[in-house]
Amino acid sequence: MNKGAFITFEGIDGCGKSTQIAMLEEYLVSSGKTVIKVREPGGTVVGEKIREILLSKKNDSMTPMAELLLFVAARAQITEEVIKPALSEGKTVICDRFFDSTFAYQGYARGMGTDKVMDINLAATGGLEPDITFVLDISPEKAFERRAVRDGGQQDRMEALGLEFQRKVREGYILASQKYPRIKVIDASGTPDEIASVIRDLTMKIGEA
Amino acid sequence: MNKGAFITFEGIDGCGKSTQIAMLEEYLVSSGKTVIKVREPGGTVVGEKIREILLSKKNDSMTPMAELLLFVAARAQITEEVIKPALSEGKTVICDRFFDSTFAYQGYARGMGTDKVMDINLAATGGLEPDITFVLDISPEKAFERRAVRDGGQQDRMEALGLEFQRKVREGYILASQKYPRIKVIDASGTPDEIASVIRDLTMKIGEA
Repeated sequence: MNKGAFITFEGIDGCGKSTQIAMLEEYLVSSGKTVIKVREPGGTVVGEKIREILLSKKNDSMTPMAELLLFVAARAQITEEVIKPALSEGKTVICDRFFDSTFAYQGYARGMGTDKVMDINLAATGGLEPDITFVLDISPEKAFERRAVRDGGQQDRMEALGLEFQRKVREGYILASQKYPRIKVIDASGTPDEIASVIRDLTMKIGEA
Repeated sequence: MNKGAFITFEGIDGCGKSTQIAMLEEYLVSSGKTVIKVREPGGTVVGEKIREILLSKKNDSMTPMAELLLFVAARAQITEEVIKPALSEGKTVICDRFFDSTFAYQGYARGMGTDKVMDINLAATGGLEPDITFVLDISPEKAFERRAVRDGGQQDRMEALGLEFQRKVREGYILASQKYPRIKVIDASGTPDEIASVIRDLTMKIGEA
């Protein structure tokens, strides 16, 4: 595995990303890597301000395109300010969602067009792409059950979009994986240890191909 | 002149846009038109929040790409929420800066690339372009004098960028006018009445070609 690997995690809400990111981070740190964990949107002064706009319920008139551009603006900022400097110092960067989220959610599920969304994304990151991306694949029904346990029955904005929308997002991720070989679709219905083991093996192969 | 015309004004700061917009608005209203005046960024709930981020001095670490995307996000919002509905109701929309500003400032003067910038702009507005765009062309030195009178010697963020930057922006506008026939470069060194007369004549020809 090279120094300065850029690893992203994707999947519908409730797929188990946080658990797997924590497990991979622990493993990499114990292997002697310096790991930077990043969560979008936010993570920078500018990004946190953008996050406030995206999350505020006062902004319910926001158009899908304005929403997309705000996500991408925060991404451009964190890419230049945090991710690129860390990678160039040889650190490993793990990102909880990156541009495949906009591919699956805005581009595919919201029907804005995956090519258009990816063009904007690539312009925003100056061509930087993850070395490897893990999509934790799980049925929307199972993810819903997990979220219910995690959040104690509290509905969030994504849940309000319903199972049909989550099914489309899942399809969007599968489509992305067919287009970009860096995306690995991981069966996330197993135990955390089983899933972590698959992710570890694939992570160790970065840079071997 | 058709109903629902979309007119934009461009030029370096101090070129006299505000005066000319007010004069054209008065003329159109006196001709029986309903006119909506729009100023970027801002003009919507979401846009005003974005404007706060763009203007706050706390955000001096903002990258050029994040800045561009925030401008374009505000533009996407105002296009869907204000401009398109007004045009479809037959109103005339006058916009103080629109996407040629990002062509000249970010695309050309900041060197981000005019094609890239325009692709993002067109994606954001869903292909909507002005019917006519007036670039009020003036030398940076003359614009500087006017701003000094207007602002009482207060330096703003654009002035701090210096005359050399303003010269590049002016070049960017000329370049844009060579690419897009809708852009009319107006000599803005004359009196307000002389300039207003040229703008009125061109405005009355919209839709004749």
